[in-house]
Amino acid sequence: MTHVSIIGRGTMAQVISGLVEKSGSTVEVFGSADSGKPVTGDIVVLAVPYPAVAGVLAQRAAQFDGKVVIDITNPLNFETFAELTVPSDSSATAEIAAALPAARVVKAFNTNFAATLASGTVGGTPTTVLIAGDDADAKAAVGTLVTAAGLRAIDAGALARARELEALGFLQITLAAAEKLPWTGGFAVVS
Amino acid sequence: MTHVSIIGRGTMAQVISGLVEKSGSTVEVFGSADSGKPVTGDIVVLAVPYPAVAGVLAQRAAQFDGKVVIDITNPLNFETFAELTVPSDSSATAEIAAALPAARVVKAFNTNFAATLASGTVGGTPTTVLIAGDDADAKAAVGTLVTAAGLRAIDAGALARARELEALGFLQITLAAAEKLPWTGGFAVVS
Repeated sequence: MTHVSIIGRGTMAQVISGLVEKSGSTVEVFGSADSGKPVTGDIVVLAVPYPAVAGVLAQRAAQFDGKVVIDITNPLNFETFAELTVPSDSSATAEIAAALPAARVVKAFNTNFAATLASGTVGGTPTTVLIAGDDADAKAAVGTLVTAAGLRAIDAGALARARELEALGFLQITLAAAEKLPWTGGFAVVS
Repeated sequence: MTHVSIIGRGTMAQVISGLVEKSGSTVEVFGSADSGKPVTGDIVVLAVPYPAVAGVLAQRAAQFDGKVVIDITNPLNFETFAELTVPSDSSATAEIAAALPAARVVKAFNTNFAATLASGTVGGTPTTVLIAGDDADAKAAVGTLVTAAGLRAIDAGALARARELEALGFLQITLAAAEKLPWTGGFAVVS
Protein backbone atom coordinates (compact mmCIF):
# COMPACT_ATOMS: atom_id res chain seq x y z
CA MET A 1 0.00 0.00 0.00
CA THR A 2 1.21 3.43 -0.90
CA HIS A 3 1.47 6.21 1.63
CA VAL A 4 0.95 9.66 0.16
CA SER A 5 1.96 13.04 1.60
CA ILE A 6 0.08 16.07 0.31
CA ILE A 7 1.59 19.50 0.81
CA GLY A 8 -1.19 22.06 0.74
CA ARG A 9 -4.74 22.43 2.04
CA GLY A 10 -6.48 24.08 -0.91
CA THR A 11 -9.20 22.66 -3.16
CA MET A 12 -6.84 20.55 -5.26
CA ALA A 13 -5.13 19.20 -2.12
CA GLN A 14 -8.50 18.20 -0.68
CA VAL A 15 -9.71 16.58 -3.89
CA ILE A 16 -6.48 14.63 -4.41
CA SER A 17 -6.57 13.58 -0.76
CA GLY A 18 -10.02 12.16 -1.41
CA LEU A 19 -8.75 10.28 -4.46
CA VAL A 20 -5.91 8.75 -2.45
CA GLU A 21 -8.36 7.52 0.18
CA LYS A 22 -10.64 6.16 -2.53
CA SER A 23 -7.69 4.30 -4.03
CA GLY A 24 -7.14 2.47 -0.74
CA SER A 25 -3.84 4.18 0.01
CA THR A 26 -3.16 6.24 3.11
CA VAL A 27 -2.72 10.00 3.11
CA GLU A 28 -1.25 12.70 5.31
CA VAL A 29 -1.86 16.39 4.59
CA PHE A 30 0.50 19.25 5.48
CA GLY A 31 -0.61 22.85 5.95
CA SER A 32 1.57 25.85 6.56
CA ALA A 33 1.39 25.22 10.32
CA ASP A 34 3.02 21.80 9.84
CA SER A 35 6.41 23.05 8.75
CA GLY A 36 8.19 21.18 11.55
CA LYS A 37 6.61 17.81 10.70
CA PRO A 38 8.58 15.73 8.17
CA VAL A 39 6.82 14.04 5.23
CA THR A 40 6.70 10.24 5.43
CA GLY A 41 4.92 9.33 2.18
CA ASP A 42 6.37 7.32 -0.70
CA ILE A 43 4.63 9.78 -2.98
CA VAL A 44 4.57 13.51 -2.26
CA VAL A 45 2.07 15.83 -3.94
CA LEU A 46 3.10 19.48 -4.20
CA ALA A 47 -0.44 20.85 -4.07
CA VAL A 48 0.39 24.49 -3.49
CA PRO A 49 0.35 27.34 -6.00
CA TYR A 50 3.56 27.53 -8.02
CA PRO A 51 4.85 30.69 -6.26
CA ALA A 52 4.68 28.77 -2.95
CA VAL A 53 6.73 25.80 -4.22
CA ALA A 54 10.10 27.50 -3.67
CA GLY A 55 9.29 27.96 0.03
CA VAL A 56 8.31 24.28 0.38
CA LEU A 57 11.54 23.19 -1.32
CA ALA A 58 13.62 25.52 0.85
CA GLN A 59 12.09 23.84 3.88
CA ARG A 60 11.79 20.22 2.81
CA ALA A 61 13.94 19.43 -0.25
CA ALA A 62 16.08 16.85 1.56
CA GLN A 63 12.94 15.04 2.77
CA PHE A 64 11.99 14.34 -0.87
CA ASP A 65 15.15 12.38 -1.71
CA GLY A 66 14.24 9.08 -3.33
CA LYS A 67 10.53 9.85 -3.31
CA VAL A 68 8.09 10.31 -6.16
CA VAL A 69 7.18 14.01 -6.20
CA ILE A 70 4.08 15.08 -8.12
CA ASP A 71 4.00 18.64 -9.42
CA ILE A 72 0.38 19.66 -10.10
CA THR A 73 1.03 23.36 -10.65
CA ASN A 74 -0.01 25.69 -13.44
CA PRO A 75 2.54 28.52 -13.25
CA LEU A 76 0.26 31.22 -14.65
CA ASN A 77 0.60 34.91 -14.15
CA PHE A 78 -2.77 35.12 -12.38
CA GLU A 79 -2.80 38.91 -12.61
CA THR A 80 -2.77 39.05 -16.40
CA PHE A 81 -3.85 35.51 -17.38
CA ALA A 82 -1.66 36.24 -20.41
CA GLU A 83 1.49 34.24 -19.79
CA LEU A 84 3.27 31.58 -17.82
CA THR A 85 5.87 32.66 -15.28
CA VAL A 86 8.44 30.00 -16.23
CA PRO A 87 10.87 30.39 -19.16
CA SER A 88 9.24 29.50 -22.49
CA ASP A 89 11.67 26.64 -23.11
CA SER A 90 11.13 25.19 -19.62
CA SER A 91 8.26 24.24 -17.29
CA ALA A 92 7.43 24.37 -13.60
CA THR A 93 8.16 20.65 -13.47
CA ALA A 94 11.57 21.03 -15.08
CA GLU A 95 12.45 23.81 -12.61
CA ILE A 96 11.31 21.67 -9.66
CA ALA A 97 13.17 18.59 -10.97
CA ALA A 98 16.34 20.66 -11.28
CA ALA A 99 15.95 21.70 -7.64
CA LEU A 100 15.32 18.10 -6.52
CA PRO A 101 17.98 15.99 -8.27
CA ALA A 102 17.52 13.05 -5.86
CA ALA A 103 13.74 12.91 -6.21
CA ARG A 104 11.70 11.42 -9.06
CA VAL A 105 9.56 14.33 -10.23
CA VAL A 106 6.46 13.84 -12.38
CA LYS A 107 3.81 16.19 -13.71
CA ALA A 108 0.22 15.15 -13.12
CA PHE A 109 -3.25 16.57 -12.36
CA ASN A 110 -2.50 20.06 -13.76
CA THR A 111 -4.81 19.48 -16.75
CA ASN A 112 -7.72 18.43 -14.51
CA PHE A 113 -10.12 20.87 -12.92
CA ALA A 114 -10.83 19.90 -9.29
CA ALA A 115 -14.53 19.29 -9.99
CA THR A 116 -13.71 16.74 -12.70
CA LEU A 117 -11.35 14.87 -10.37
CA ALA A 118 -14.08 14.73 -7.73
CA SER A 119 -16.87 13.69 -10.11
CA GLY A 120 -14.76 11.35 -12.25
CA THR A 121 -16.26 12.77 -15.41
CA VAL A 122 -15.79 15.59 -17.89
CA GLY A 123 -19.09 15.99 -19.69
CA GLY A 124 -19.76 12.27 -19.71
CA THR A 125 -16.21 11.25 -20.59
CA PRO A 126 -14.25 9.60 -17.75
CA THR A 127 -11.69 11.98 -16.25
CA THR A 128 -8.16 11.23 -17.46
CA VAL A 129 -5.00 12.27 -15.62
CA LEU A 130 -2.08 12.98 -17.95
CA ILE A 131 1.29 12.08 -16.45
CA ALA A 132 4.71 13.18 -17.70
CA GLY A 133 8.15 12.38 -16.33
CA ASP A 134 11.48 10.75 -17.03
CA ASP A 135 11.17 7.91 -14.46
CA ALA A 136 8.95 5.09 -15.76
CA ASP A 137 8.46 3.51 -12.32
CA ALA A 138 7.43 6.83 -10.81
CA LYS A 139 4.90 7.39 -13.59
CA ALA A 140 3.58 3.86 -13.16
CA ALA A 141 3.13 4.41 -9.41
CA VAL A 142 1.11 7.56 -10.06
CA GLY A 143 -0.89 5.80 -12.77
CA THR A 144 -1.71 2.94 -10.39
CA LEU A 145 -2.91 5.39 -7.75
CA VAL A 146 -5.07 7.23 -10.28
CA THR A 147 -6.71 4.12 -11.71
CA ALA A 148 -7.27 2.66 -8.23
CA ALA A 149 -9.19 5.87 -7.50
CA GLY A 150 -11.47 5.14 -10.45
CA LEU A 151 -10.02 7.60 -12.95
CA ARG A 152 -8.08 7.00 -16.16
CA ALA A 153 -4.36 7.65 -16.53
CA ILE A 154 -2.26 8.22 -19.64
CA ASP A 155 1.51 8.37 -19.74
CA ALA A 156 2.00 11.60 -21.70
CA GLY A 157 5.73 11.06 -22.20
CA ALA A 158 8.99 12.50 -20.95
CA LEU A 159 9.38 15.27 -18.41
CA ALA A 160 9.89 17.61 -21.37
CA ARG A 161 6.19 17.14 -22.18
CA ALA A 162 5.33 18.96 -18.92
CA ARG A 163 5.73 22.07 -21.02
CA GLU A 164 2.79 21.05 -23.22
CA LEU A 165 0.76 19.89 -20.20
CA GLU A 166 1.28 23.32 -18.66
CA ALA A 167 0.24 24.97 -21.93
CA LEU A 168 -2.92 22.86 -21.86
CA GLY A 169 -3.57 23.79 -18.22
CA PHE A 170 -2.92 27.45 -19.01
CA LEU A 171 -5.33 27.45 -21.96
CA GLN A 172 -8.03 25.61 -20.02
CA ILE A 173 -7.80 28.04 -17.07
CA THR A 174 -7.89 31.15 -19.28
CA LEU A 175 -10.95 29.83 -21.12
CA ALA A 176 -12.75 29.03 -17.86
CA ALA A 177 -11.78 32.38 -16.33
CA ALA A 178 -13.25 34.04 -19.44
CA GLU A 179 -16.42 31.95 -18.97
CA LYS A 180 -15.94 30.18 -22.28
CA LEU A 181 -15.73 26.85 -20.46
CA PRO A 182 -17.30 25.79 -17.15
CA TRP A 183 -15.02 24.79 -14.27
CA THR A 184 -16.84 21.46 -14.34
CA GLY A 185 -15.82 20.90 -17.97
CA GLY A 186 -12.78 21.69 -20.06
CA PHE A 187 -10.65 19.33 -22.09
CA ALA A 188 -11.87 15.75 -21.91
CA VAL A 189 -9.55 13.02 -23.17
CA VAL A 190 -11.33 10.64 -25.53
CA SER A 191 -9.17 7.53 -25.65
CA MET B 1 -21.76 34.44 -48.60
CA THR B 2 -18.12 33.81 -47.91
CA HIS B 3 -15.76 32.54 -50.58
CA VAL B 4 -12.96 30.37 -49.21
CA SER B 5 -9.64 29.47 -50.83
CA ILE B 6 -7.91 26.37 -49.54
CA ILE B 7 -4.21 25.91 -50.26
CA GLY B 8 -3.44 22.20 -50.11
CA ARG B 9 -4.98 18.91 -51.20
CA GLY B 10 -4.27 16.67 -48.20
CA THR B 11 -6.71 15.16 -45.75
CA MET B 12 -7.21 18.33 -43.72
CA ALA B 13 -7.69 20.36 -46.91
CA GLN B 14 -10.35 17.92 -48.09
CA VAL B 15 -12.15 17.83 -44.75
CA ILE B 16 -12.16 21.62 -44.36
CA SER B 17 -13.35 21.95 -47.96
CA GLY B 18 -16.28 19.71 -47.05
CA LEU B 19 -17.05 21.88 -44.02
CA VAL B 20 -17.06 25.03 -46.13
CA GLU B 21 -19.51 23.45 -48.57
CA LYS B 22 -21.67 22.27 -45.69
CA SER B 23 -21.67 25.82 -44.28
CA GLY B 24 -23.20 27.11 -47.52
CA SER B 25 -20.10 29.05 -48.55
CA THR B 26 -18.17 28.48 -51.76
CA VAL B 27 -14.73 26.95 -51.94
CA GLU B 28 -11.80 26.76 -54.31
CA VAL B 29 -8.89 24.39 -53.70
CA PHE B 30 -5.29 24.92 -54.84
CA GLY B 31 -2.79 22.12 -55.36
CA SER B 32 0.86 22.42 -56.22
CA ALA B 33 -0.02 22.47 -59.94
CA ASP B 34 -2.10 25.64 -59.44
CA SER B 35 0.77 27.96 -58.60
CA GLY B 36 -0.12 30.33 -61.44
CA LYS B 37 -3.76 30.71 -60.38
CA PRO B 38 -4.41 33.56 -57.88
CA VAL B 39 -6.56 33.02 -54.80
CA THR B 40 -9.90 34.84 -54.84
CA GLY B 41 -11.37 33.89 -51.45
CA ASP B 42 -12.17 36.25 -48.60
CA ILE B 43 -10.79 33.59 -46.29
CA VAL B 44 -7.66 31.62 -47.16
CA VAL B 45 -6.82 28.35 -45.42
CA LEU B 46 -3.15 27.39 -45.36
CA ALA B 47 -3.78 23.64 -45.32
CA VAL B 48 -0.26 22.48 -46.07
CA PRO B 49 2.34 21.08 -43.65
CA TYR B 50 4.25 23.81 -41.87
CA PRO B 51 7.50 23.25 -43.81
CA ALA B 52 5.55 23.97 -47.04
CA VAL B 53 4.12 27.28 -45.80
CA ALA B 54 7.26 29.29 -46.62
CA GLY B 55 6.99 28.25 -50.27
CA VAL B 56 3.32 29.26 -50.42
CA LEU B 57 4.12 32.64 -48.90
CA ALA B 58 7.05 33.18 -51.28
CA GLN B 59 4.64 32.61 -54.14
CA ARG B 60 1.44 34.23 -52.93
CA ALA B 61 2.06 36.58 -49.96
CA ALA B 62 0.81 39.68 -51.80
CA GLN B 63 -2.42 37.86 -52.75
CA PHE B 64 -3.28 37.54 -49.05
CA ASP B 65 -3.30 41.28 -48.32
CA GLY B 66 -6.50 42.23 -46.51
CA LYS B 67 -7.73 38.64 -46.36
CA VAL B 68 -8.37 36.40 -43.38
CA VAL B 69 -5.65 33.75 -43.42
CA ILE B 70 -6.20 30.61 -41.34
CA ASP B 71 -3.09 28.77 -40.18
CA ILE B 72 -3.98 25.16 -39.31
CA THR B 73 -0.44 23.85 -38.94
CA ASN B 74 1.22 21.88 -36.18
CA PRO B 75 4.93 22.61 -36.61
CA LEU B 76 6.19 19.33 -35.19
CA ASN B 77 9.51 17.73 -35.83
CA PHE B 78 7.87 14.67 -37.42
CA GLU B 79 11.11 12.70 -37.32
CA THR B 80 11.48 12.80 -33.54
CA PHE B 81 7.95 13.72 -32.37
CA ALA B 82 9.89 15.32 -29.50
CA GLU B 83 9.74 19.04 -30.24
CA LEU B 84 8.21 21.85 -32.22
CA THR B 85 10.30 23.46 -34.95
CA VAL B 86 9.38 27.04 -34.07
CA PRO B 87 11.13 29.04 -31.32
CA SER B 88 9.74 28.21 -27.86
CA ASP B 89 8.55 31.78 -27.29
CA SER B 90 6.82 31.94 -30.69
CA SER B 91 4.39 29.86 -32.80
CA ALA B 92 3.86 28.96 -36.42
CA THR B 93 1.01 31.46 -36.47
CA ALA B 94 3.18 34.26 -35.09
CA GLU B 95 5.84 33.52 -37.71
CA ILE B 96 3.23 33.54 -40.50
CA ALA B 97 1.63 36.73 -39.19
CA ALA B 98 5.03 38.42 -39.17
CA ALA B 99 5.49 37.43 -42.80
CA LEU B 100 2.01 38.68 -43.76
CA PRO B 101 1.66 42.11 -42.10
CA ALA B 102 -1.24 43.13 -44.36
CA ALA B 103 -3.26 39.95 -43.77
CA ARG B 104 -5.40 39.05 -40.74
CA VAL B 105 -3.92 35.78 -39.56
CA VAL B 106 -5.76 33.44 -37.20
CA LYS B 107 -5.01 30.02 -35.80
CA ALA B 108 -7.76 27.42 -36.12
CA PHE B 109 -8.34 23.70 -36.72
CA ASN B 110 -4.87 22.61 -35.50
CA THR B 111 -6.34 21.03 -32.36
CA ASN B 112 -8.86 18.99 -34.37
CA PHE B 113 -8.08 15.61 -35.88
CA ALA B 114 -9.51 15.35 -39.42
CA ALA B 115 -11.87 12.51 -38.45
CA THR B 116 -13.46 14.62 -35.72
CA LEU B 117 -14.04 17.53 -38.12
CA ALA B 118 -15.70 15.15 -40.57
CA SER B 119 -17.86 13.35 -37.99
CA GLY B 120 -18.66 16.45 -35.92
CA THR B 121 -18.00 14.55 -32.72
CA VAL B 122 -15.17 13.60 -30.36
CA GLY B 123 -16.39 10.62 -28.37
CA GLY B 124 -19.94 11.95 -28.17
CA THR B 125 -18.95 15.56 -27.49
CA PRO B 126 -19.56 17.96 -30.40
CA THR B 127 -16.32 18.90 -32.16
CA THR B 128 -15.11 22.38 -31.13
CA VAL B 129 -12.73 24.50 -33.20
CA LEU B 130 -10.49 26.71 -31.08
CA ILE B 131 -9.65 30.03 -32.76
CA ALA B 132 -6.89 32.46 -31.76
CA GLY B 133 -5.92 35.77 -33.30
CA ASP B 134 -5.60 39.50 -32.77
CA ASP B 135 -8.36 40.57 -35.21
CA ALA B 136 -11.82 40.14 -33.67
CA ASP B 137 -13.65 40.41 -37.01
CA ALA B 138 -11.40 37.77 -38.57
CA LYS B 139 -12.03 35.40 -35.67
CA ALA B 140 -15.76 36.06 -35.88
CA ALA B 141 -15.76 35.27 -39.61
CA VAL B 142 -14.04 31.95 -38.97
CA GLY B 143 -16.39 31.21 -36.08
CA THR B 144 -19.41 31.89 -38.27
CA LEU B 145 -18.08 29.51 -40.92
CA VAL B 146 -17.43 26.80 -38.33
CA THR B 147 -20.84 27.03 -36.69
CA ALA B 148 -22.61 27.17 -40.07
CA ALA B 149 -20.87 23.85 -40.79
CA GLY B 150 -22.46 22.37 -37.68
CA LEU B 151 -19.44 22.46 -35.37
CA ARG B 152 -18.79 24.54 -32.28
CA ALA B 153 -16.31 27.42 -32.16
CA ILE B 154 -14.56 29.05 -29.22
CA ASP B 155 -12.51 32.23 -29.36
CA ALA B 156 -9.36 31.07 -27.55
CA GLY B 157 -7.91 34.56 -27.25
CA ALA B 158 -5.11 36.60 -28.76
CA LEU B 159 -2.67 35.45 -31.43
CA ALA B 160 -0.22 34.79 -28.60
CA ARG B 161 -2.43 31.87 -27.54
CA ALA B 162 -1.53 30.09 -30.79
CA ARG B 163 1.50 28.92 -28.84
CA GLU B 164 -0.74 26.99 -26.42
CA LEU B 165 -2.95 25.73 -29.26
CA GLU B 166 0.17 24.37 -30.96
CA ALA B 167 1.27 22.76 -27.69
CA LEU B 168 -2.15 21.11 -27.49
CA GLY B 169 -1.92 19.96 -31.10
CA PHE B 170 1.61 18.67 -30.50
CA LEU B 171 0.57 16.71 -27.40
CA GLN B 172 -2.49 15.26 -29.10
CA ILE B 173 -0.49 14.12 -32.14
CA THR B 174 2.28 12.53 -30.06
CA LEU B 175 -0.29 10.64 -27.97
CA ALA B 176 -2.09 9.39 -31.09
CA ALA B 177 1.17 8.46 -32.80
CA ALA B 178 2.06 6.46 -29.65
CA GLU B 179 -1.37 4.77 -29.85
CA LYS B 180 -2.44 6.21 -26.50
CA LEU B 181 -5.31 8.02 -28.23
CA PRO B 182 -7.23 7.09 -31.38
CA TRP B 183 -7.11 9.47 -34.37
CA THR B 184 -10.92 9.60 -34.06
CA GLY B 185 -10.63 10.87 -30.46
CA GLY B 186 -8.26 13.18 -28.62
CA PHE B 187 -9.09 16.29 -26.65
CA ALA B 188 -12.81 17.04 -26.62
CA VAL B 189 -13.91 20.46 -25.42
CA VAL B 190 -16.71 20.24 -22.86
CA SER B 191 -18.28 23.69 -22.78
